[in-house]
Amino acid sequence: MLKDNERIDDLQCRGYKIIQNPNGYCFTGDSVLLSNLINVKKGDKVVDLCTGSGVVALLTDAKYSPLRVIGVELQQRLADMAMRSVKLNNLSTVEIINKPLQGIHKDIGSGYDVVTVNPPYENAPLKESYTEDDICKREVKVTLEEIIKESASLLRYGGLFYMINRTRRFVDVICHMRAYGIEPKKIYMVQPKASKDVDTFVVEGKRGSKPSVTIPAPLIVYDENGNYTEKVRSLYNK
Amino acid sequence: MLKDNERIDDLQCRGYKIIQNPNGYCFTGDSVLLSNLINVKKGDKVVDLCTGSGVVALLTDAKYSPLRVIGVELQQRLADMAMRSVKLNNLSTVEIINKPLQGIHKDIGSGYDVVTVNPPYENAPLKESYTEDDICKREVKVTLEEIIKESASLLRYGGLFYMINRTRRFVDVICHMRAYGIEPKKIYMVQPKASKDVDTFVVEGKRGSKPSVTIPAPLIVYDENGNYTEKVRSLYNK
Repeated sequence: MLKDNERIDDLQCRGYKIIQNPNGYCFTGDSVLLSNLINVKKGDKVVDLCTGSGVVALLTDAKYSPLRVIGVELQQRLADMAMRSVKLNNLSTVEIINKPLQGIHKDIGSGYDVVTVNPPYENAPLKESYTEDDICKREVKVTLEEIIKESASLLRYGGLFYMINRTRRFVDVICHMRAYGIEPKKIYMVQPKASKDVDTFVVEGKRGSKPSVTIPAPLIVYDENGNYTEKVRSLYNK
Repeated sequence: MLKDNERIDDLQCRGYKIIQNPNGYCFTGDSVLLSNLINVKKGDKVVDLCTGSGVVALLTDAKYSPLRVIGVELQQRLADMAMRSVKLNNLSTVEIINKPLQGIHKDIGSGYDVVTVNPPYENAPLKESYTEDDICKREVKVTLEEIIKESASLLRYGGLFYMINRTRRFVDVICHMRAYGIEPKKIYMVQPKASKDVDTFVVEGKRGSKPSVTIPAPLIVYDENGNYTEKVRSLYNK
């Protein structure tokens, strides 16, 4: 089941495991945070874009037991790992598709209840070739706007969209969402510590909703001693 | 100097006074907060839209000593009070103009360094007539989009825009700003208490700037005993 350099990590949720390759892109705490802040019901059909090694797709299945989760990943090596992780966990509810996300609704249809995405955060650098890591972290193969446009095509009217991103892209995310008819409804601001700026956010959007947004008290990840705050611990254990 | 029911209040800043009428609209802590979060230099030319009784115009003059502050107010009674407050304080640097803000750059020119505004927060209710208070608080005579459009006409390239508003209008403000070329650069989130949602924000925009925004740790107004937090006290006393 494992290829060269790969290892199996425990997702610390219902015994789910994930295959990762430490020589390539490995998932970060952002994906775990995203999967803990989404609102998914049993019976929901979910698409996770830029699924990478499948971490958000797997955690969504583990935490919320939706009817179906489709993870979409462009990069063949990552999609292959994600497919093997699905097999490793014996899941019939999770499917990984190895295709570009642009236009993917033509393959997998529309009317989804939830779309999740932890996208590339950075603009693409001008280089001759890109590593797996570059493609995960930078807008080399897909732009923010393309992701949001495709999400709008995938979601049913009233369906929910969740994206995590860095603060500096905040205005881009909010404006593209509104432009494509996914109205921001709730924005979680994330501070690494109480004394630090907001560096990350998770936005919940609703396709076709009226304007009006709420912003809860920010989520502070670490206390001044470097330990998880009580709020984060209870979020991760729920 | 005072008309029926009017009183003189102390702005608690360099001895500045303001005339108010408790039977009409009186300024709130939001205007004081706004004037404490703006970045105004000596030599700047500033316009304060929706100036009402002139509180933000007066505090801007008191705190930052800019070259000139023009307050624009549609309602005659409020503009008249603001003009008398300017006289009361013997200010030659503050001018109040009693006109609608739409198209005001045709009267007062463009190229301003800073535009400030504490606008009406709410949509207009359907009523036959509106009170002074309605017009201050609701989009009866001016919309959010008109305010942002006019601000863009008033500002020089690189000039700064500051608006305070309620969280529920957040997406409207951000998207209109970008649409009119005033890029949001800094967003202050304001929580009444640490345990409460963000209910208010102040945005700093820069005309013609590249995208990229920062969000400082939220400003918490009151501690759990109902006293101003140290952060707010130091902000107000700086």
